[in-house]
Amino acid sequence: MLIEAADVEALALGGAFLATGGGGDTLIGELSTTAALERYGPVPLIDAAALADDALVVAVGASGSPTIMQEKPGNGQEARWALAALERHLGRSVDALIAFEAGGMNALLPIYAAAERRLPVLDADGMGRAFPELQMESFSIYGISATPLAAAVERGDLMLLDRISSSAVAEQLVRQYSVVAGGGQCVSAEHPMTGAQAREVSILGTISLCRDIGRLLLHHGNRIDAFVDDLTRLLAATHYGEVRPLYRGKVTDVSRQVRDGYDFAEVRLAAFGRSGATPDLLLEVKNEYLTAMLGDQPLALTPDLICVLDNETGRPITAETIRYGQRVTAIGIGAPALMRTPRALEVVAPGNFGFAQAYVPIEQLPKNSQL
Amino acid sequence: MLIEAADVEALALGGAFLATGGGGDTLIGELSTTAALERYGPVPLIDAAALADDALVVAVGASGSPTIMQEKPGNGQEARWALAALERHLGRSVDALIAFEAGGMNALLPIYAAAERRLPVLDADGMGRAFPELQMESFSIYGISATPLAAAVERGDLMLLDRISSSAVAEQLVRQYSVVAGGGQCVSAEHPMTGAQAREVSILGTISLCRDIGRLLLHHGNRIDAFVDDLTRLLAATHYGEVRPLYRGKVTDVSRQVRDGYDFAEVRLAAFGRSGATPDLLLEVKNEYLTAMLGDQPLALTPDLICVLDNETGRPITAETIRYGQRVTAIGIGAPALMRTPRALEVVAPGNFGFAQAYVPIEQLPKNSQL
Repeated sequence: MLIEAADVEALALGGAFLATGGGGDTLIGELSTTAALERYGPVPLIDAAALADDALVVAVGASGSPTIMQEKPGNGQEARWALAALERHLGRSVDALIAFEAGGMNALLPIYAAAERRLPVLDADGMGRAFPELQMESFSIYGISATPLAAAVERGDLMLLDRISSSAVAEQLVRQYSVVAGGGQCVSAEHPMTGAQAREVSILGTISLCRDIGRLLLHHGNRIDAFVDDLTRLLAATHYGEVRPLYRGKVTDVSRQVRDGYDFAEVRLAAFGRSGATPDLLLEVKNEYLTAMLGDQPLALTPDLICVLDNETGRPITAETIRYGQRVTAIGIGAPALMRTPRALEVVAPGNFGFAQAYVPIEQLPKNSQL
Repeated sequence: MLIEAADVEALALGGAFLATGGGGDTLIGELSTTAALERYGPVPLIDAAALADDALVVAVGASGSPTIMQEKPGNGQEARWALAALERHLGRSVDALIAFEAGGMNALLPIYAAAERRLPVLDADGMGRAFPELQMESFSIYGISATPLAAAVERGDLMLLDRISSSAVAEQLVRQYSVVAGGGQCVSAEHPMTGAQAREVSILGTISLCRDIGRLLLHHGNRIDAFVDDLTRLLAATHYGEVRPLYRGKVTDVSRQVRDGYDFAEVRLAAFGRSGATPDLLLEVKNEYLTAMLGDQPLALTPDLICVLDNETGRPITAETIRYGQRVTAIGIGAPALMRTPRALEVVAPGNFGFAQAYVPIEQLPKNSQL
C-alpha cells in the first residue's frame, strides 16, 4: 500500500486518537508530511511479513514534552540527521523505518523521514499507542537493544549512544539530551533491528489502523456513539482488546506542569446532569492519559488505552490542550496483546508510572453503570 | 623525557597538589599507572613543540564526583573503550594523549591509557590545575570543540557526542551520563585537535611540573615553609603567578554534599593561637577549592589555585577528605596566564561558580597579615 498526501489527514487524526492524549500536536506533522509526500511522492507502507530477514529496520520518533514541541517545533531536519548519524555508525544504509509509537506526530514522523529518503515504512509500531518512555517500546520489551541510537536536536547537535545496556538508562540519557541540548525535544533513530526481529517484536498493522480510525472519525464527525460502534467492529479483528466508553462529562479541573522533560497533569471530569449519582472521573497524565479513576474504582488502566474525544467536534483532545469547560467522551480500549504480557507489564503497568493500582485488563473492570 | 614507574609517586603527589582539592584520590591511579608502566614500559612525555602539525591529539580524563570515584573505582578499561570509540568515529588513530586537567587522578590517567596503547603523552594539560567542568578546559576556551567526544562507564556503556555546539551543554550531557549510566563517574576522550592546535590552546609543561612539585613535597616532608620557598623558585620561571601562603589553622567545620554529580562543600579554618585577631578562613568547594575568604576579604579566587597541605604530613588534602581537627596550611598560586585572560575569565571566574566576588588576581589582593 502506498501512503499519499491525501492519506495524511486521516493518518494524523487516527494517530491523535491512538496517542491517548500524548504524542504531541499533529498539525505541524500533518502539514510537513503532506508537503514531503507531494514533493517526493508516495511512501510504501509495507507489511512486516514482506521484509527480508536481514533488512535493517530502524525506529524513528520525537521525544520530549508535547507542550514544548507545540510551542517550538523542530526544523524538520532532525530525523534526517539522526538517521545519517546512525547509518554512519553502523556502516550501512537503513532499509525501512518503523514508528516507535503509533501516536500523534510520531505516527507521521517515519513517513515524513521516509519520503525524502525514498524508504518504505513498516505498517507496525513499538507501542500500539503512545507511551512516554523508550523502554516501553515493544522492541525493548522483547529484547532488542535501543542502541546504537542517534539523536538530533533543532540546532544540529548530535548524540550517539553507542552501547547502553539498559533501555531505561538510554531513555534518561535521551531525555536529558532533549532538555539540555534541544530545549525539550529531540528526534531519535534507534532500536536498529533485522527484518526477522521486526516481525517478532512489533505491534503489527498499526499505521493502517491509524488511517482507518482517522477515516472513521472524519466520517462520523461528532456522532461519537456511531464512531464507537464502528471502531468496535474495526478492532474486533485485531490484537486490540475491548472498546468501551468510559465517561461523558465536562472538564472541571486541570492541573498540569512540565517537569523533567515530561508533561504531568490531573484532569477531572464531572458527569452531565449529575445529581450526585456519578462520581467525578479523574484522568492521570504523564504525557499520556494513563489511568481513568471513578472515585476509587478504576475504569481503565495503562497499558489499556484511554482516549478522549471532544463532544462538539468529535476530535481527539491531547492531554496538553485539554481545558476547563470542554465537554468530552473518554473511551477505553484494551491494549494490543503484546503490550499485555507479563513481560510488557513489567514496564507499562500503573506501578511503572507511580500509581498504586495493579493492572486489571479493561475487560475485567466494572463498566460505568451511568452510561 | 620518559615517564617510568619510578616517577609515578612524585607525579601523583604533585598532581594532588595542583588539583586544588579536586581531581579525586590519586592512590588508585598511582597503583594502576605504576603497574601499567611496569608492564608496558615507559611512556614518552613530549613537548607540544615536538608534535607534527597534523598529529591527532585527544584529551582524556575522568569526570564525576571525587567522593564516588574513591568509593567505587572504575574497572581500568574505560579510557581504552572511550579512545577506541572515538577513533572508530573519527576513522583514524590517535597520535598523542593530553590530560584535560593536570590534577589528581586526571594527571595520571593519560599516562595509564598511553602505556597500553604505546602512545606518547603531551607535557601539557587543559587547565594547569583541576576544575569541575569541561568547558573550563583551555581547549574549549580557545575554540576547540569538545566533540566528537566518547565517554565510557564501568559496566561498558558507551556514549558518543558527535557534534555538540556548546561545551557547557556537552559538560551537562557527560555529567548526566556519568550519573545515570556510570553511577557517578565516566572516562571521556574528547577535544580531538591537531598538533598545531594543541600547541596554541594547552597549558604547557604541567605534567613535568606535577612531577617536580611532587619531588619537592617528597623531599621536604612536613617542612612546608621550605617547600613553599622551593615552589616559589620553581614556578618563577613558568607562566604561573605568585606563590603565597594564605592561612595556617585548624579545620573547625566542614559541610559537604554530593549533588548533581559534584561534591559541594564549605570548609572553615580557625587560626592557631588566635585571640580574636585573625578571622576564620572559609574555603568554598565545588569539587575544587575555589575561593578563600578571610571574613569578607578574599585571599585567593578562582582561577588562581588554592592548595591545602596537611601540617603533620606535608601532603595535599583533597576537598572530599578534609575533616574536622586537621591542622593545615592553605597556599595560593596565581593561575597560568592562559587561564587569566578575559576569554578564560568568562568561564572560570568566581561568578561562574555562583560566588559574588569579582576576580582579582592574587597578586593584587591583600596578604594575610597574621602570617
